Amino acid sequence: MADLARLSRQRRAREQEGRFVLDGPVLLADAVAAGIEVHDVFVDPDATTRPEVADAVAAAVGSGARAWAVQGGLRGHVEPRTPNGVAAVARTPDAAPDPDPTARAALHLVLVAVGDPGNAGTLLRTAEAVGATSVVLADGSVDPWSPKVVRASAGSVLRVPVGHGSAAEVLAALGEAGVQRVATAGAGGLAPQDLDLAGPVALVLGSEAHGLPADLDAAVDARASLPMAGRVESLNVAVAGSVLAYEVLRQRAGAGPR
Amino acid sequence: MADLARLSRQRRAREQEGRFVLDGPVLLADAVAAGIEVHDVFVDPDATTRPEVADAVAAAVGSGARAWAVQGGLRGHVEPRTPNGVAAVARTPDAAPDPDPTARAALHLVLVAVGDPGNAGTLLRTAEAVGATSVVLADGSVDPWSPKVVRASAGSVLRVPVGHGSAAEVLAALGEAGVQRVATAGAGGLAPQDLDLAGPVALVLGSEAHGLPADLDAAVDARASLPMAGRVESLNVAVAGSVLAYEVLRQRAGAGPR
Repeated sequence: MADLARLSRQRRAREQEGRFVLDGPVLLADAVAAGIEVHDVFVDPDATTRPEVADAVAAAVGSGARAWAVQGGLRGHVEPRTPNGVAAVARTPDAAPDPDPTARAALHLVLVAVGDPGNAGTLLRTAEAVGATSVVLADGSVDPWSPKVVRASAGSVLRVPVGHGSAAEVLAALGEAGVQRVATAGAGGLAPQDLDLAGPVALVLGSEAHGLPADLDAAVDARASLPMAGRVESLNVAVAGSVLAYEVLRQRAGAGPR
Repeated sequence: MADLARLSRQRRAREQEGRFVLDGPVLLADAVAAGIEVHDVFVDPDATTRPEVADAVAAAVGSGARAWAVQGGLRGHVEPRTPNGVAAVARTPDAAPDPDPTARAALHLVLVAVGDPGNAGTLLRTAEAVGATSVVLADGSVDPWSPKVVRASAGSVLRVPVGHGSAAEVLAALGEAGVQRVATAGAGGLAPQDLDLAGPVALVLGSEAHGLPADLDAAVDARASLPMAGRVESLNVAVAGSVLAYEVLRQRAGAGPR
């Protein structure tokens, strides 16, 4: 239980111990299905009458987890909100092995200092939906294993190859591998349909507040700007990244640019 | 001050009084610029050394607002989070007058039971960016004038025509006016680029949890499904709506379907 609260709240604890928290039966079942090693399951006995809770616990125990009944429930032990009758501590998957970045269908998302858990989680969800090759949370981006991100990703973080690291190094490596690096820009870039996105692409998404720092902006191959009317200066980063990712899919479906 | 806390937290109070809360200097300045009637401005005296606070207060007072110094700051008076040195009570703009829904470039967003403030706010932000004709928050959707939505919209709610009402009635009226009603569907719809979205369009966006109820699903003219790989069953509603809205813009830019 102490583990649950600490791992739920502290990034440092998650990183030192290589463990993270799953909150609720859906994420727990998703994790077991994804082959993630679940260590300990904490169950509110009152919740075991719900079939989805009982099934998720059974699946976790079947995969080797220990189950603990928590008299009085899990309230106060799980961030960010009222728990869903069951929570678990699991082993954080290793950072994704370097995929073949030159594959024709490669599509990387590189998040630079994206600090909002909802936005990071939403981008991970989109990443799985578009079949992304990898998602790199670089340069002060939020921890993908925080409960808020795991939840906002609707479990996609359990299934998408996730990496960390320095954005400058990641972009350099992708560039050397021949991957086109496309940054989102508030203005001054090309409309997405005017870029050729059919080949291997990395979408470089800057922070909500500050966009891309100058040194990284100079390190990309192209800039995409979505048209913006009114007084809007920028889109939500999850929206901008998702619109671009689906334009990549549209072009690869055979339409090509325009 | 009592007004601030009550209007910040209670939808009923906002609706009965026709007033809402602006939190922080950016939204306050945006509201004054948008011609919204600001009644009372509450300022933490310690914050007036920040130029953006002083400027926003001066603009509001110049437009007729009364200013009040709040010794001890605004903490606890503004939801959902630590206030930004200044907050204000303003008159809620009237629901948008019915725009000409048959205009060639009409683009309506109809949100059906979208309860998450972040998603509603993000869709309002996208709506302004794509030059939407109206955003209708229908059938139990979140209050667009709640502080969380106003903030998540980055002020766009102050500038986009916002409506309320029954989704069934709104969709019926749009249909009679010749507007194509396109719902997002998790599966079974056409790829967005295979729909002809160049004419007047209403995008019908269902709730995150339940999608569209059957009676509304039967009332639309077309369904769009974004391709989804992996185990993703649905996209974040703000993502799905924004991707579709930008596909409308792409087709209107001259590309046409495909």
